Amino acid sequence: MNISVNYSEDYQGLVSAELHEKLQAIHEGIQTKTSTGSDFLGWVNWPSSLTPEFLQDIKVTADRIRSNSEVLVVIGIGGSYLGSKAVLEALSTPFQKDDHLEVIFAGQLVSGSYLKQLIAYLDSKEVTLNVISKSGTTTEPAIAFRFLRQYMEERYGEESASRIIVTTDEEKGALLSLAKEKGYKRYVVPGDIGGRYSVFTAVGLLPIAAAGHDIEQLIAGAKKAEEELQVFDIKSNAAVKYAVIRKHLYDKGYPVEIMATFDEKLTYVQEWWKQLFGESEGKEGKGIFPASVLYSTDLHSLGQYIQDGKRMLFETFLMVEKASDDLTVFEAEDNRDELNYLSGLTLHDFNKACHEATASAHLAGGVPQITLMMEQLDEKHIGHLLYFYMMACAYSAYLLDINPFDQPGVEDYKRNIFKILKKPGY
Amino acid sequence: MNISVNYSEDYQGLVSAELHEKLQAIHEGIQTKTSTGSDFLGWVNWPSSLTPEFLQDIKVTADRIRSNSEVLVVIGIGGSYLGSKAVLEALSTPFQKDDHLEVIFAGQLVSGSYLKQLIAYLDSKEVTLNVISKSGTTTEPAIAFRFLRQYMEERYGEESASRIIVTTDEEKGALLSLAKEKGYKRYVVPGDIGGRYSVFTAVGLLPIAAAGHDIEQLIAGAKKAEEELQVFDIKSNAAVKYAVIRKHLYDKGYPVEIMATFDEKLTYVQEWWKQLFGESEGKEGKGIFPASVLYSTDLHSLGQYIQDGKRMLFETFLMVEKASDDLTVFEAEDNRDELNYLSGLTLHDFNKACHEATASAHLAGGVPQITLMMEQLDEKHIGHLLYFYMMACAYSAYLLDINPFDQPGVEDYKRNIFKILKKPGY
Repeated sequence: MNISVNYSEDYQGLVSAELHEKLQAIHEGIQTKTSTGSDFLGWVNWPSSLTPEFLQDIKVTADRIRSNSEVLVVIGIGGSYLGSKAVLEALSTPFQKDDHLEVIFAGQLVSGSYLKQLIAYLDSKEVTLNVISKSGTTTEPAIAFRFLRQYMEERYGEESASRIIVTTDEEKGALLSLAKEKGYKRYVVPGDIGGRYSVFTAVGLLPIAAAGHDIEQLIAGAKKAEEELQVFDIKSNAAVKYAVIRKHLYDKGYPVEIMATFDEKLTYVQEWWKQLFGESEGKEGKGIFPASVLYSTDLHSLGQYIQDGKRMLFETFLMVEKASDDLTVFEAEDNRDELNYLSGLTLHDFNKACHEATASAHLAGGVPQITLMMEQLDEKHIGHLLYFYMMACAYSAYLLDINPFDQPGVEDYKRNIFKILKKPGY
Repeated sequence: MNISVNYSEDYQGLVSAELHEKLQAIHEGIQTKTSTGSDFLGWVNWPSSLTPEFLQDIKVTADRIRSNSEVLVVIGIGGSYLGSKAVLEALSTPFQKDDHLEVIFAGQLVSGSYLKQLIAYLDSKEVTLNVISKSGTTTEPAIAFRFLRQYMEERYGEESASRIIVTTDEEKGALLSLAKEKGYKRYVVPGDIGGRYSVFTAVGLLPIAAAGHDIEQLIAGAKKAEEELQVFDIKSNAAVKYAVIRKHLYDKGYPVEIMATFDEKLTYVQEWWKQLFGESEGKEGKGIFPASVLYSTDLHSLGQYIQDGKRMLFETFLMVEKASDDLTVFEAEDNRDELNYLSGLTLHDFNKACHEATASAHLAGGVPQITLMMEQLDEKHIGHLLYFYMMACAYSAYLLDINPFDQPGVEDYKRNIFKILKKPGY
């Protein structure tokens, strides 16, 4: 069930005695919560610290939503959006809605037409809102909540209070005081877990459970990863391995990482990964720029650049060993499309062959290759994968001597916009 | 109606006498169809050469599809997918399907679960197929067509021939001969227009018209751009200007361009742009790597990297002057969210302020800024925009002394996969 990490060159030769020592210090700093930014290391032991009572409470709320609502609108941005979105898409069934509650996101961007049309769409459905914001004053979700709260109050009257669920800080903030006053059901964004590390808290779990997925399995996977990655071993610790290879490639002049997948269900895992790594590492003029591609689509697009363009890229394939559902190419009598040579091949096997072909062509073209292999796309393995990425990200940032847990650049743009819009106090 | 191009530094100083001469030679080479790769310059005068009869024929077919089908499945990859997808998304209305025909893409990736679930979904709908492939043997769409043709023939029997429309080469190929034999309605992929420049041919026009959009306005916009960009003037020619700025930044050590938008409807225009530029420029170890972000979402994600990460990025905002639909922030009695300072502001104006705040923060952080401004999101302005990008892309590649119209790297991976899968002859 481990994530396997394969590298196109020799891995063990990369770990000098000096690097080994640094890695060990980083590992201990994380596990003992003494490293830089240690106020935000709550995610490290979070999966193993979750109680059955907590998960039960989330499930009861999710069941209530499913019993009285057809749509759950989740208001959030950044980590309050991407974690649950990534898991929901990874577990989704295209073209089918049937018994699943529909989860729709809002507040992840500011759009009058989107919000207007969303509200018109909600009119024929029973609705619950889950608004997620640590402070309650992040502008984009706050704007969406101002419109949607008004809508819910006008439509449901007093009942609206039982149809609004707030996920926010435990002790302070505008959303907390509003929730207390109105009697909204509340969940907590833990003070020691940043947004991009929050998918296993109520931030991610409530929307995922409401959509009908098994959050106990998701947490079981994360817990397994937590246990495995507690062991410091440069050969077997997948997070250490991935971080070491990335750092080596960065130092060798490859500042862009392309995360490639053949599975369209993983495109939002890629978006979540881009936030996790980009926001954690991209500081002080350093860091690997995270980009993503979906194959085969992008083999007929960015594939050309990756094969032959400026040599500054390395490529990491996120592969899934077993298909959840599949088709086999059948023999056609006329063979007009000349595809009979593929008869008997499953489409999943076609993609595996395509991975092999692409990786060898790109490697020959000067693009170092990493492959992350996970077993299958279910709750347990996704939980494992996301925890693995979080731990690898912490190592990666510390290897660059960067605090993985702040985001000073995001604060820069926030201050600028408050000034331009003349927010009182700016 | 022109696209305006604004640059954070002095533009005119960038054009030396030598560069001016080179640009003029490139311009003449394109307009007289004598430059490298001139066999593929058919797109240059395509909009002005389209006859009313051709557009009428497309519209009649589109009307027939709309009258007897609820779903049009478009099978294609690369340029046979991204052009119409970009226009359809840009003109889309989220949460509403009502009288519009639903257009669903297939063959842009290989997925058993996607194809299986698509076929199950189609069972309760009336369906037309449009399969788009120059050769008819590109593997990914050919696989999808093998399954979907079987489905159509089993379901519709003889009627299936009138429900399958083929867009392929005029003179050769497997799909052409099949279409002739079966009597499928046919459209032509012109021999002198490559996939990524094909959005204004039947490749793009039929799906766009079938979805109910005004293809005459789309072509009118493209034709306007064709006329404007025929004039060689380094001050007023937007395509020249954008290409010059990009080349200057590339030479100065900025090999990554981030295309940023605040409008989720433009995310597939970004994907189309990534194919157009990445596949045209990314050769011989050269070219700008094209990446994209959607704000505000990504201000709480990659925004951190863009502000503070490794300095190798420049940022191009694709902005829309007028909102198609909007909301105004209202005054709230309680002001619990502290947003009353925004009362009276439209959400579109919020995004414009956000652009100003972001551009100035990123510029201060060492990220050069370009802004492309278009007037509004309708057929005419989208046609203008896409033609502008095509022309700017041709200049850009020629400025790097690269043929914009081939894709040798894509052929490398195709050969590799044929070898691995043991295609006869490889």
